[in-house]
Amino acid sequence: MKKAVILLSGGLDSATCLAIAKSQGYEAYCLSFDYGQRHNAELAAAARVAKTLGAAEHRVVKIDLAAFGGSALTDANIPVPTDGVQGNVIPVTYVPARNTVMLSYALAWSEVLGADDIFIGVNAVDYSGYPDCRPEFISAYQVMARLATKAGVEGASLHIHTPLIFLSKGQIIQKGTALGVDYGQTVTCYKADSEGRACGECDACRLRRAGFEAAGVTDPTRYAR
Amino acid sequence: MKKAVILLSGGLDSATCLAIAKSQGYEAYCLSFDYGQRHNAELAAAARVAKTLGAAEHRVVKIDLAAFGGSALTDANIPVPTDGVQGNVIPVTYVPARNTVMLSYALAWSEVLGADDIFIGVNAVDYSGYPDCRPEFISAYQVMARLATKAGVEGASLHIHTPLIFLSKGQIIQKGTALGVDYGQTVTCYKADSEGRACGECDACRLRRAGFEAAGVTDPTRYAR
Repeated sequence: MKKAVILLSGGLDSATCLAIAKSQGYEAYCLSFDYGQRHNAELAAAARVAKTLGAAEHRVVKIDLAAFGGSALTDANIPVPTDGVQGNVIPVTYVPARNTVMLSYALAWSEVLGADDIFIGVNAVDYSGYPDCRPEFISAYQVMARLATKAGVEGASLHIHTPLIFLSKGQIIQKGTALGVDYGQTVTCYKADSEGRACGECDACRLRRAGFEAAGVTDPTRYAR
Repeated sequence: MKKAVILLSGGLDSATCLAIAKSQGYEAYCLSFDYGQRHNAELAAAARVAKTLGAAEHRVVKIDLAAFGGSALTDANIPVPTDGVQGNVIPVTYVPARNTVMLSYALAWSEVLGADDIFIGVNAVDYSGYPDCRPEFISAYQVMARLATKAGVEGASLHIHTPLIFLSKGQIIQKGTALGVDYGQTVTCYKADSEGRACGECDACRLRRAGFEAAGVTDPTRYAR
């Protein structure tokens, strides 16, 4: 069986990404990060999802992105927005270089595992404001990654899979539902409480709720109110 | 004054790199990593070097590369080699994706600081076995990094400086000596003791010693024996 490293946040997108990798026959090595999130409900969700979907291993690596600040997701001084995603404005929930850092850890683990495949659930549609979710970023990362490693020098051809990149939230939910993902296990909310219940008000909650409506799938999210 | 992030290991190369950045008029924000090294003598050295050379700030970020293993520098089960650097073989002291991970943190900090410049003391001559020290890797990283960040989308043009990349160890020492670097403060040895004294036997020690001889500069290294 081919091994793949799957970046797993505990949210809806990465859970779907894991299900897709499994459906393509990969042995799944799931990687989550404790990066100074405001809450750990999503790491608990990641562990549930990895277990339910049959991951070979789930590893949580502590990283210190909060050391640099600069984002509403890691800096308590910047409020989480609840007023809707703006067209061309990069949200304050953007974490500087987050996907670059996370992919770099995935690259390190893939090399040690002897895996040529990394899956990341980035999406260029609903969150078009994040620069590190764009296809041109992923392509450039792959070019760099093939030059970065001993495995690459020795002939391995790393592939970064982004199966969700052009799907709408509704299409992602339809695909995951068909593959048996239990979205009740996932946490998307930026302000989930300690038991993983969603606020229902932040931009992430709004996009998620609209996605279930568009997909015609009953929303299993547990809301705090 | 323009700000730059300088990757500072506490070794000879990165100390020289910091001195070059300062000589070019940059305000230096030095970044070191606690990445599961076998000893912390090099972090103590980095702090001394940053202070002596007038860094604006020195930050140490804990990263967990040892979680993945795969290198003699982070895995206690792999012995550190003492039998000389081989021509085209990548040494077991290679740490998977290390420079990719470290540059990614530098990228995150540079974005928060509003800095367009990152300095890294990679060298393609003496350590030609490391894939992530090659110019083609650095070029690809820069292309990727410009696509990765909000700063890049908004027009910033990140530049990764590698002033040592084509210099021999002897040339690096001559350049740093001319800029006033006190190499007695730096630690290069893979197996330095807790007081920063070098073993004199590992491949890093051999290259360093030969560098001082080639440069015609007295070697200030403190050897354990």
